[in-house]
Amino acid sequence: MHDYNYYLRLVDGAINNIQYPKNPSKLYEPIAYTMNQGGKRVRPVLTLMTCEAMGGNLDDAINVALGIELFHNFTLLHDDVMDRADIRRGQPTVHTRWNENVAILSGDTMLNMAAQAISKVDDDILPAMVKLFNDTAIKVYEGQQYDMDFEKRNDVTVEEYINMIRLKTSVLLGCACKAGALVARTDEENAESIYNMAVNLGLAFQLQDDYLDVWGDPVTFGKEIGGDIVNNKKTFLLINAIDRSAGNDAIELNRWLADTSSPKQEKIQAVTALYEKLGLKDLARNAIVNYSHNALDLLHETKMSYDAYKVFDGIINRLVDRDR
Amino acid sequence: MHDYNYYLRLVDGAINNIQYPKNPSKLYEPIAYTMNQGGKRVRPVLTLMTCEAMGGNLDDAINVALGIELFHNFTLLHDDVMDRADIRRGQPTVHTRWNENVAILSGDTMLNMAAQAISKVDDDILPAMVKLFNDTAIKVYEGQQYDMDFEKRNDVTVEEYINMIRLKTSVLLGCACKAGALVARTDEENAESIYNMAVNLGLAFQLQDDYLDVWGDPVTFGKEIGGDIVNNKKTFLLINAIDRSAGNDAIELNRWLADTSSPKQEKIQAVTALYEKLGLKDLARNAIVNYSHNALDLLHETKMSYDAYKVFDGIINRLVDRDR
Repeated sequence: MHDYNYYLRLVDGAINNIQYPKNPSKLYEPIAYTMNQGGKRVRPVLTLMTCEAMGGNLDDAINVALGIELFHNFTLLHDDVMDRADIRRGQPTVHTRWNENVAILSGDTMLNMAAQAISKVDDDILPAMVKLFNDTAIKVYEGQQYDMDFEKRNDVTVEEYINMIRLKTSVLLGCACKAGALVARTDEENAESIYNMAVNLGLAFQLQDDYLDVWGDPVTFGKEIGGDIVNNKKTFLLINAIDRSAGNDAIELNRWLADTSSPKQEKIQAVTALYEKLGLKDLARNAIVNYSHNALDLLHETKMSYDAYKVFDGIINRLVDRDR
Repeated sequence: MHDYNYYLRLVDGAINNIQYPKNPSKLYEPIAYTMNQGGKRVRPVLTLMTCEAMGGNLDDAINVALGIELFHNFTLLHDDVMDRADIRRGQPTVHTRWNENVAILSGDTMLNMAAQAISKVDDDILPAMVKLFNDTAIKVYEGQQYDMDFEKRNDVTVEEYINMIRLKTSVLLGCACKAGALVARTDEENAESIYNMAVNLGLAFQLQDDYLDVWGDPVTFGKEIGGDIVNNKKTFLLINAIDRSAGNDAIELNRWLADTSSPKQEKIQAVTALYEKLGLKDLARNAIVNYSHNALDLLHETKMSYDAYKVFDGIINRLVDRDR
């Protein structure tokens, strides 16, 4: 086994080697732009790691890893159009730099490029790989649709929220790992264990994102604190707050949700104080720890060497105990 | 072999049998709405026809046919967003009836549903089917991008135009036929013949669309005549007119292209007269006949029974000598 940066270098090498057709340039330049914006490359690294941990050959997994990263970046591209987001990783989004039509069509192209890359595997594992990819993609869209639906609802339950982030974020991490397991030709049970490990890891990761937006250190978190509060974003915290507040707490929460005139910092401080009063800091921390432990338990169930286990264990701690 | 309507009924039956998940409803209702809007179902019918003509089993081809129709309808859905088209088949488009985000995400979902349907084939033909599908999809997007690029250019060559319609329209007809040939497990050469037959058929069909917009009978054509002229649409005719006009003809053409105040009918009559003066009616007619003849020649090269040949021959004549 190798360390995270070793796999990351392989992934970045493969991304740099993609040969984009020259024309039509408005179709392919935005794809190259998107793929070259960087990022942690967590998903393709997980594919390579899983493949190697389960005795597979990295050369056989690199195109699959690339396909998963292409798919992930396609979803970000279309999501940015839907969310009217202007900036991604410090640079203008594709629909801002070019236009919306370019973003839609380049995205569609990336999706089929992803499917092409995913299918560069031996014939014996192609059926399972194609099924995994298409099933996962549709779940991710369902998650994005629920996320948009929730913006307009005030009665979202915690269970619905967890299901949404499972679909929108976690199943792709599961897919990344399972794809590596398929290339390694591990048995079905082992592939399911690593899939479920990654789904739990994804849930812990997303809940931590919600947590850090409120209680993170702005310097290490790398972005402003309180953005979710200012935007009334339906996070794990806000949904629990709506669910658990009563009497004066509920009145105060609703007042802040309706507020559009107070200074940002005042709203952030007041809502954070209310979250703490309602016990949500501990609640969130416990949920994150629980999902991380589930991930570790499932990791324990998978058949891999101790050497490989330690690398995954390190990744789980790196992703979940991160403060940025 | 059977007639067109027999295959059409099979396709419509399969479309009616699609089980859409209930939730999220904003993701799946627009897909059901799109698929139930009707249409000629030319592509899936071609898949079934080809499969049967080449000795395959229709039951083995129906999901593939369905996948191709899902893909085609997905492209219409996203194209309508890009073209800001409000009406499709007499009904509001998805982005008009719901909104743009719904259209983008439902479209993405249809694309992976198409890929799922396409891959419901025996393992031995899956690699070729997946490759055909992804390669074709990307060509279709390239065609759409060129089409949008051409709106802003005045130096589009006839060759570029033919390449654009080949990508945007014809290769999907080729894919539809080749997919049926793959299910029938015909040899590679035969699959290529039917593919190229359909590509030529598609070119004839698209050029005829340009032709009928100018010289069609409004009653049988089913839509207003002259829409392309009013909108300065870069059709085979306008591109040839720009290419072939000189002196006063060129001045007049440019005046009409810049005109925004004259009554529509006046512009349509003047530009039609200019097209006729430049010999474009014959030029277009000859091009249509040439591509149809190519299609018939290629049909002749494919190995199928005389019975099957006659059905395809009928389709070519039905599609290309249509006056609506």
